[in-house]
Amino acid sequence: MTSMRVGFVGLGAMGARMAARLQKSGSRLTVFNRTRDKAEPLIREGATWADTPAAVAEQAEILFTMLAHPAAVKEAALGQDGFLYWLRPQTLWVDCSTVNPSFSREMAAEAHARKLRFLDAPVAGSREPAARGELTIFVGGDAADLEACRPLLQAMGSKILHVGGHGMGTALKMVNNLLLASSMAAFAEGLVLGEALGIEPKRLLDFLLVSPLVAPYMAGKRNKIESGNYAPEFPMKWMQKDLHLAGVSAQETAVALPLAGAAKELYELAARQGHAQEDFSAIYAFLNARQP
Amino acid sequence: MTSMRVGFVGLGAMGARMAARLQKSGSRLTVFNRTRDKAEPLIREGATWADTPAAVAEQAEILFTMLAHPAAVKEAALGQDGFLYWLRPQTLWVDCSTVNPSFSREMAAEAHARKLRFLDAPVAGSREPAARGELTIFVGGDAADLEACRPLLQAMGSKILHVGGHGMGTALKMVNNLLLASSMAAFAEGLVLGEALGIEPKRLLDFLLVSPLVAPYMAGKRNKIESGNYAPEFPMKWMQKDLHLAGVSAQETAVALPLAGAAKELYELAARQGHAQEDFSAIYAFLNARQP
Amino acid sequence: MTSMRVGFVGLGAMGARMAARLQKSGSRLTVFNRTRDKAEPLIREGATWADTPAAVAEQAEILFTMLAHPAAVKEAALGQDGFLYWLRPQTLWVDCSTVNPSFSREMAAEAHARKLRFLDAPVAGSREPAARGELTIFVGGDAADLEACRPLLQAMGSKILHVGGHGMGTALKMVNNLLLASSMAAFAEGLVLGEALGIEPKRLLDFLLVSPLVAPYMAGKRNKIESGNYAPEFPMKWMQKDLHLAGVSAQETAVALPLAGAAKELYELAARQGHAQEDFSAIYAFLNARQP
Amino acid sequence: MTSMRVGFVGLGAMGARMAARLQKSGSRLTVFNRTRDKAEPLIREGATWADTPAAVAEQAEILFTMLAHPAAVKEAALGQDGFLYWLRPQTLWVDCSTVNPSFSREMAAEAHARKLRFLDAPVAGSREPAARGELTIFVGGDAADLEACRPLLQAMGSKILHVGGHGMGTALKMVNNLLLASSMAAFAEGLVLGEALGIEPKRLLDFLLVSPLVAPYMAGKRNKIESGNYAPEFPMKWMQKDLHLAGVSAQETAVALPLAGAAKELYELAARQGHAQEDFSAIYAFLNARQP
Repeated sequence: MTSMRVGFVGLGAMGARMAARLQKSGSRLTVFNRTRDKAEPLIREGATWADTPAAVAEQAEILFTMLAHPAAVKEAALGQDGFLYWLRPQTLWVDCSTVNPSFSREMAAEAHARKLRFLDAPVAGSREPAARGELTIFVGGDAADLEACRPLLQAMGSKILHVGGHGMGTALKMVNNLLLASSMAAFAEGLVLGEALGIEPKRLLDFLLVSPLVAPYMAGKRNKIESGNYAPEFPMKWMQKDLHLAGVSAQETAVALPLAGAAKELYELAARQGHAQEDFSAIYAFLNARQP
Repeated sequence: MTSMRVGFVGLGAMGARMAARLQKSGSRLTVFNRTRDKAEPLIREGATWADTPAAVAEQAEILFTMLAHPAAVKEAALGQDGFLYWLRPQTLWVDCSTVNPSFSREMAAEAHARKLRFLDAPVAGSREPAARGELTIFVGGDAADLEACRPLLQAMGSKILHVGGHGMGTALKMVNNLLLASSMAAFAEGLVLGEALGIEPKRLLDFLLVSPLVAPYMAGKRNKIESGNYAPEFPMKWMQKDLHLAGVSAQETAVALPLAGAAKELYELAARQGHAQEDFSAIYAFLNARQP
Repeated sequence: MTSMRVGFVGLGAMGARMAARLQKSGSRLTVFNRTRDKAEPLIREGATWADTPAAVAEQAEILFTMLAHPAAVKEAALGQDGFLYWLRPQTLWVDCSTVNPSFSREMAAEAHARKLRFLDAPVAGSREPAARGELTIFVGGDAADLEACRPLLQAMGSKILHVGGHGMGTALKMVNNLLLASSMAAFAEGLVLGEALGIEPKRLLDFLLVSPLVAPYMAGKRNKIESGNYAPEFPMKWMQKDLHLAGVSAQETAVALPLAGAAKELYELAARQGHAQEDFSAIYAFLNARQP
Repeated sequence: MTSMRVGFVGLGAMGARMAARLQKSGSRLTVFNRTRDKAEPLIREGATWADTPAAVAEQAEILFTMLAHPAAVKEAALGQDGFLYWLRPQTLWVDCSTVNPSFSREMAAEAHARKLRFLDAPVAGSREPAARGELTIFVGGDAADLEACRPLLQAMGSKILHVGGHGMGTALKMVNNLLLASSMAAFAEGLVLGEALGIEPKRLLDFLLVSPLVAPYMAGKRNKIESGNYAPEFPMKWMQKDLHLAGVSAQETAVALPLAGAAKELYELAARQGHAQEDFSAIYAFLNARQP
């Protein structure tokens, strides 16, 4: 199976690393991206370039997408030269993009209407785990479809969770990022308040980062916070977008999210003040800033 | 030292358990509480009852307070029959109450003005750790004063942290509870959204409670969330009060806390709707409720 | 002109009253609604019933829509039997629904692609002004198109504002409702706090409702607040939806709305606690409630 | 009566103008301020300088205070050289400072314990109305005490409201500023969103500032918003402080204020980013700013 012809659409910071993992594990790739330069390293290793999503579809026995937001997925799938019009019947489309669950279900329905199969399979983890094939992958859809592509998913991720039916992979990813975004902002507030009250910053981090009250994830942000270098692992603008998508899903399900809502507005304010492209942990820098 | 005459003012759910630990470790207690019935178990084991805080002070070589809020501490210390007027010079007052740092510093100044010594030593942990002597104790003040009472603190806590000067123990406790309150509310939002999106609740908890994105503390709330029985370990009204105190400190230090602020209002709404006396994890029940 | 053949799609509480105004002013109506019973009063006065939006289009020289949300507009326009496929070239479609500006622009583009003309023309005002033809109508699109339908708009509204190009009518309506929703919640907070502090409620309203700090609109809610009867003029669930649409537009334009965001979550909590179908001023009742 | 010996403590931007009004109407002033330079214009017109609040008290038949916050009032009244220890029995103390109601009641009790009389009489209006004697004055306390000083209040204010007993003047002032702060932030959000959506700014203001959905007060901020010159009429840092005091009162009365809470944090963020000394309407500039 690892020598299947695999189509891959979307070669951003994450997608390029994920496609490379597939390639290394033996898949023959056909790839498309809005700009071709991102594909060059893969092409040098043997991947075939396609000029359109449709052209990827014509060669693919299975197709992966890793795009920035629902509109980008929809354009690639159903726009002019959309791949959904060209995939052979029974082909499996695996969407790894971070979208919202109702959108995943909409895409599943579009696929089914064309006798295609669909999995939502968004991933957790940033660039380094992607490069090492150590992502966590949340899968929604039929168990049989998951089994059909498990070896490929295992090339990209070290943890594969079958969460439930269509949209449930996306749903758990959404909850994941909601917790990430809110926890980081709350943690930053705690740091800023503690420092303002006079606690020595190093001692404060030493204590909090092993405290059961703090998510273990935060320890990975210590360097950024102490150095003030917020080179992006997860850019703030994407985190803010994920909070917005959670808000869309909350609206669809009549759920109130007062903290996540406050976090969304806070990240937007920070983004407008110049932190949009930085790692989302730069919310600490924004909260801690003081102009004369 | 463990046979020192120890004064203890404030025998609520926490104070009574802490005083019992001191008694078991050999201290001779003199105790005061607004209502005497809470003191009876200690008296049966040999503690002396005092009718006023002042009467405690007259017998104490060291004095502990564990009261509900700053106003209660001030009344006991400086009100009519306040103990500060009656402690012998050089006596050490250890305030274990959860207050705000500027209040701790104010009490330190009041103590110093009377040639007394002061430590702020608020505790983290709920009723069960208190009963087992396994609290975490955050200490602010002089190292010499901490050493002078360390054996007593060790009778109550398994982890003693010297955070810094006066008010710094209180400051770290404040940060601690801020993180606790915000994280719990954020976690509850994640659960409610995940369930509303269709993720099976048990699977959702199974995943989140071992996720690095979630504070390990949350696992201790699983039973409450699954059973719907919110018998209080940490009553919501106290958590809401601690968020308010954090807001007071934030104001004094010109810090913005958008998430903690949103959490404070959310807990207040929940408290008004009937959850005030429940465990603060009942915020999940409030967010998840839906009237026809 | 007033004897033009006018198509009208969407006969809810507002649409039925607006269509009746057109009918009274001489227009010959062809109407469609998901349920026919809402159309009966118009049919009795001479309106023609159509079984589908497409059937309305076939008879219409101009077409109005007044639907609940963007998805409903899209379904009527572009779904199976959508009217956009059947309108004659150069026909003017006037969408009075409260939607978001990017959606209005999308509909304008869909219309233009079919050689049709489009105006977004959402209305401000509740049921009574609708029945009297005293709505405010915010128009986005070409001035010539506005002039072409001005007499019809004047049958429904006493104030017609040409705000700008496509989507600008919708944009101003959105700002309008944003202010309405936030102001009402802020006003309710002021009332609840004032009463809790001991100000006599009647005196408080007497003062605030003529104060320059309070929007004159609020005076119209006095009866509801004093009587506790929140029969809907503007149901809370629609107001909450409008805040969500404002959030969508804010996301598209990278604007932060901390207060409107907080208001959105507050209305959702209130809706879940049973106020969804009441007038949105019932946010006062929700904030003021206290369970034992 | 207008030739009474009037003590006045606190000569900031507001207090100096209010004292000048009393002086012009015939009162013989004895004044105290932390820095003497603010008192010079009054001294040149005949006022007597006092070196301490106590020294003011010794000469005063009635005493006014206009100070920045509760702690400043307490220091002047009850600190070293506090005036409360020196006022003659039955003297009336009128506190015009913007504080919180429980503090006003505490001051009333302190006054009564010394056989003194007390009114809380905070004022609404900025520097220009203060200079013209056109403030609104909210009075809490006994009607007889109000009558005793009405001519003096009328020298400073054009509208005198007797709201209720002790603390009720302060309570209504608090509600007033709560509405002012929330409404301004909500209005700014509406402007920023409307502009971002493409509505021409002048047209947007033209429409909103006569809309019944907008508090008439906002019209007075148009010049600042259009010019970008936020010379303070009401500095943002004071408005932020008033929101904090409202939060303290909300906590004391178990009221939830989600919007006012969000506004408090927003103003704090804006203050930290450099807007603290500007007029509070600069919240528009903060929300509208965008860094590259």
